[in-house]
Amino acid sequence: MQSFNFYNPTHIVFGAGRVSELAHLVPTGAKVMVLYGGNSARQHGTLDEVEAALSQHELHLFGGIEPNPSYQTLMRAVAQVQQLQIDFLLAVGGGSVIDGTKFVAAAACFAGDNPWDILQQGGKNITQALPFASVLTLPATGSEMNRGGVITNLETKSKRSFSNNLLYPQFSILDPTKTYSLPDKQVANGVVDAFVHVMEQYLTYPTQAKVQDRFAEGLLQTLIEIGLPAIQQRENYELRANLMWTATLALNGLIGAGVPQDWSTHMIGHELTALYGLDHAQTLAIILPSMLEYRREQKQGKLLQYAERVWGITDGAPEQRISQAIANTRDFFESLGVATRLRDYGLDETAIEPVIEQLRQHGMLNLGEHRDLTPEDSQNVLRLSL
Amino acid sequence: MQSFNFYNPTHIVFGAGRVSELAHLVPTGAKVMVLYGGNSARQHGTLDEVEAALSQHELHLFGGIEPNPSYQTLMRAVAQVQQLQIDFLLAVGGGSVIDGTKFVAAAACFAGDNPWDILQQGGKNITQALPFASVLTLPATGSEMNRGGVITNLETKSKRSFSNNLLYPQFSILDPTKTYSLPDKQVANGVVDAFVHVMEQYLTYPTQAKVQDRFAEGLLQTLIEIGLPAIQQRENYELRANLMWTATLALNGLIGAGVPQDWSTHMIGHELTALYGLDHAQTLAIILPSMLEYRREQKQGKLLQYAERVWGITDGAPEQRISQAIANTRDFFESLGVATRLRDYGLDETAIEPVIEQLRQHGMLNLGEHRDLTPEDSQNVLRLSL
Repeated sequence: MQSFNFYNPTHIVFGAGRVSELAHLVPTGAKVMVLYGGNSARQHGTLDEVEAALSQHELHLFGGIEPNPSYQTLMRAVAQVQQLQIDFLLAVGGGSVIDGTKFVAAAACFAGDNPWDILQQGGKNITQALPFASVLTLPATGSEMNRGGVITNLETKSKRSFSNNLLYPQFSILDPTKTYSLPDKQVANGVVDAFVHVMEQYLTYPTQAKVQDRFAEGLLQTLIEIGLPAIQQRENYELRANLMWTATLALNGLIGAGVPQDWSTHMIGHELTALYGLDHAQTLAIILPSMLEYRREQKQGKLLQYAERVWGITDGAPEQRISQAIANTRDFFESLGVATRLRDYGLDETAIEPVIEQLRQHGMLNLGEHRDLTPEDSQNVLRLSL
Repeated sequence: MQSFNFYNPTHIVFGAGRVSELAHLVPTGAKVMVLYGGNSARQHGTLDEVEAALSQHELHLFGGIEPNPSYQTLMRAVAQVQQLQIDFLLAVGGGSVIDGTKFVAAAACFAGDNPWDILQQGGKNITQALPFASVLTLPATGSEMNRGGVITNLETKSKRSFSNNLLYPQFSILDPTKTYSLPDKQVANGVVDAFVHVMEQYLTYPTQAKVQDRFAEGLLQTLIEIGLPAIQQRENYELRANLMWTATLALNGLIGAGVPQDWSTHMIGHELTALYGLDHAQTLAIILPSMLEYRREQKQGKLLQYAERVWGITDGAPEQRISQAIANTRDFFESLGVATRLRDYGLDETAIEPVIEQLRQHGMLNLGEHRDLTPEDSQNVLRLSL
């Protein structure tokens, strides 16, 4: 096990009907901005509930935060926060809205000249942030209980991540019934996103981190068990509750504490989204199986463990077991309705070179748990994904 | 899954050689009291390391906190803290020292007339506490990352628990090498304590809390895998690191969030310790197998799951599988050198009635996940433990 720090002060408020507790969770007297995405938060009543709970607070609304939230949109929110002297932010939505709110919380207090520097430095230069919280409506990214986010610059087509200990939500309300109105596609994307988050902290090389492995395997087993039924049974509370808590635990720092990590699938995926507009989860479903195939030798020990403990594959030669586990992974994504080939999204060989060029430009020269995945390797992974 | 709140702000600092980081972890200018137990903290160099790291701080020492820390000892610490105007407490030791430090942190600021009221009300009346942290030397109780403790009143022979959100350590340093000097018996006790902590949050009835179940099972599997080797291989870093992190996660609130709990084994065990001086873990090893046997009908669903997922028992009729799982549990404790019968500790039938009397006096009339375990039931459990 590697040495580690684990710190996560977010207060999770989990269960049906708990949005009303905002009344006492948000500091008395705070001037609040509620940030949200499209129309669904209003349409499905969540915004009304939030407004009712915060009827004693001064409230301002900022809507229109898009999936893959943009720097350009968020800087408009920052201007309003500063102008209105807002002192508490409340994200109502999924990972994009929460990520965006984290950026607004930091940028509104940023001492430097150019808030883009926050993303250039990955958040290391954040020294102050507004307090904020979230009401989660879409289980997927884990942003509701972690200290990071990802922002897209529409002008430069770059997607950059940032993190800082000041960016933990003070609290997050996780009400599984808020997911009932989600389109199937978004739920499926959430399952894939959470699954890949776990894999990127698990599928590296064995390091005797026994509990972290067991926890990661437990999350994967749960996603495999509930993924499809949770999509199909829209108002099944138990399935949606399990999906919501699993997705949160997939990226709250716990299973990643003390272990090597490999975020190469995410890094390549980000470029696919920035260039071609694919959903984040679609890019992960495309890249992960090919990445496991391409790195099957380096990842052999963990792939065999994954095959046995997660998929119950114990028969056959090691190479066969690994192939079967990778095939099962791909089939699982496909079974959820998330296609796993570039061609499924209308992309062919010509789509690859621009991705590699972006990776080079963004300094993604040495990815993976061993820092040895070069842009040429990423090219090979993308070829396996055609 | 039940609704829940999860909140745990303790910063974990995990790894070899990290005690030196106290220098910047403890607030600059703080007047610090270091609380510890017997001679081992000095003898094995941990206190020296702490003093070296805090050479820029005003330091005061308070030693002699006993296993099952006593109200009487701790009130002496409280008097010194108040007299010296201490503003930061540092526990150096295992669960007893950390529990004791939590009580001192609360009692030193207590507004009421009689600090024993803190224990009478289970900590609900704590409105202020000194900030504190810990350097853990004994993996067992999880106190290093939770908000509770247990204190014994030597005069009344009662052992009472208390908890409050103000009682999370600010940080806890977990250095697995600090466990190398522990007597085997203490390591074995720690394994049993952690195992039973998990069982009391897991072995109740099925509630579709899939991740909590998987996590609990992962902790149990890990303890079964590493328990004996971790005792035998004193300086095996990986084994000790896994034991340390497993014991912390066994009682930091995570696996208990959203599930029913059954702390009856602990409650009966506390009385055995208070009356007869048995080690805490010894009492758990005595009670748990009998409790599972006595409650095998109410706990059937979870016992079958435990048999299959933790012990790999899939053959035979349900009753046989349950019997085998309970027998394996008992054998596991025995294999660690922790005896599981009252007679092994020189206690016979006559020891039982005083325990039941104490349970009655302490209001423990309805224990268990269904609140239906009466003192008569506890008597039957103790008879099965003879």
